[in-house]
Amino acid sequence: MANWPKYVQIKEVGPRDGLQNEKTWIDTSDKIAWINMLSESGVKEIEYSSFVNPKWIPALADAREVGKRIKRNPDVSYSALVPNLKGLDFAFEAGIDRASVFMSASETHNLNNINKSIDETYPILKQVINEAKQAGKLVTGYVSTVFDCPHEGKIAPSEVHRVCEKLFEYGVDDISLGDTIGSAVPSQVEQLLETMLTHYPKEKIIMHFHDTRGMAIANIMTSMQYGVHRFDSSIGGLGGCPYAPGAAGNVATNDVLYLLHGLGIHTGMSEDKVQEASLFIQGKLGKALPSRSLAYLASAI
Amino acid sequence: MANWPKYVQIKEVGPRDGLQNEKTWIDTSDKIAWINMLSESGVKEIEYSSFVNPKWIPALADAREVGKRIKRNPDVSYSALVPNLKGLDFAFEAGIDRASVFMSASETHNLNNINKSIDETYPILKQVINEAKQAGKLVTGYVSTVFDCPHEGKIAPSEVHRVCEKLFEYGVDDISLGDTIGSAVPSQVEQLLETMLTHYPKEKIIMHFHDTRGMAIANIMTSMQYGVHRFDSSIGGLGGCPYAPGAAGNVATNDVLYLLHGLGIHTGMSEDKVQEASLFIQGKLGKALPSRSLAYLASAI
Repeated sequence: MANWPKYVQIKEVGPRDGLQNEKTWIDTSDKIAWINMLSESGVKEIEYSSFVNPKWIPALADAREVGKRIKRNPDVSYSALVPNLKGLDFAFEAGIDRASVFMSASETHNLNNINKSIDETYPILKQVINEAKQAGKLVTGYVSTVFDCPHEGKIAPSEVHRVCEKLFEYGVDDISLGDTIGSAVPSQVEQLLETMLTHYPKEKIIMHFHDTRGMAIANIMTSMQYGVHRFDSSIGGLGGCPYAPGAAGNVATNDVLYLLHGLGIHTGMSEDKVQEASLFIQGKLGKALPSRSLAYLASAI
Repeated sequence: MANWPKYVQIKEVGPRDGLQNEKTWIDTSDKIAWINMLSESGVKEIEYSSFVNPKWIPALADAREVGKRIKRNPDVSYSALVPNLKGLDFAFEAGIDRASVFMSASETHNLNNINKSIDETYPILKQVINEAKQAGKLVTGYVSTVFDCPHEGKIAPSEVHRVCEKLFEYGVDDISLGDTIGSAVPSQVEQLLETMLTHYPKEKIIMHFHDTRGMAIANIMTSMQYGVHRFDSSIGGLGGCPYAPGAAGNVATNDVLYLLHGLGIHTGMSEDKVQEASLFIQGKLGKALPSRSLAYLASAI
């Protein structure tokens, strides 16, 4: 029997990474009601929105209002995506426990996504990390396209390590490694973790899988075999793939919980409450979300 | 790096296990054209239909005509589901290389599915296996609900072993172990294979996963870590779950190939041809099939 962790911590990213790829506008009051439901699911961390310029992510243009009006559960850490100092000010105003900064391990993806080279991005993130830490906040560094880049192809673990090294040097508390296009297979996860875990303790590594090709649950299993016990997931598998409309999004919290609880791994989360919150947002979006467990439970008698 | 097999053999069960759960009637000529496409995909075995009484499986009422009219690729072994001697006669007439007999590891599921107890089922299968072997055919024994039964709950590996022992005694060449309701998690796969592989060589074990809860790819990975290298899968993830309309079916051949080829495991199959055949049957069924890879490739530019 593999050496799986006894406890896994989920960060619910549906309200941010999930919704940001959805075309349908969700009313602010619905977002708030939904995040409040998630807050009662037993989850320990929720990324509630993004303070990226609404010009780029119109679906989350109400981040400040959402942050101000959600009911804070003292057992939950609330984070938000922060691109720069201006975004950080808004995030402070709206209320965050943790700031999530982000960049890509691929030069071309970083250019396309942030409009800056990797080297031009570092000083901006350094400022944000400094200010957030000085304000007593935790900081997560998202590194995207850690396996494959839609433009450059395979990304070497050494390139991912190079970016992580900088971010840790600037003071991030942990790193979330993103399979942004959902293309990785377990052997790639093994290769990356072999490199990462020689440099950083497993407590500081979060794996962030998308289920675009249906590999996410297998990749989570592989990560756990390396002792990794922190994962990002999105309720119902919300989110889709920006490169392929109709394809699956972030790995579904529902499916992750089915796996973990089936393996006897503790999460503190309630599958029933996750199902409830999934059905709520599915109703608002007016379409079936990709989670297999959601579809099964929703259709079973 | 885990000790994965270098070669994996897929049995395509879409035309049988997939279609048998679909409500939409597929015209015989379309079935034939589609199976002919599958025959050119590099797959080594296709289960082309079922000789169960059409009263029970109306979707496959044309099994004899399909068997007679498909173009046989000499590199492909063609099998069909056979419930009894009458079905075997029809199968002989239609042409088979291999007969697939079936029963359940769960008494209640066997009663519900075959209308007989496990002990009443044995002599019938014994006859079929005998006749098929005497005619020079290979025989696979499907054992269903090997992990969980919708009626009885958890099924002990010893109960599965008891059924397999009888089937091997009667002369089956191999056993396909079915996660009929798609509920298993990797720890259950480990437990079952620990038992099975103390009794039988891994070459004689085929794993048959449904993706109802999104665990199938992880379960295949786990099986491969035990050296198992034969899997049943269904093109596009065709099939659904009889207990939950709208839920996912057999694990999708498309997603399995993405995993295996990504891991550098040889299958001899072409993902392009599988995609083509998936789009063909998806068009005939008039609905999106559950395979993640299919959806991704179909929607990507």
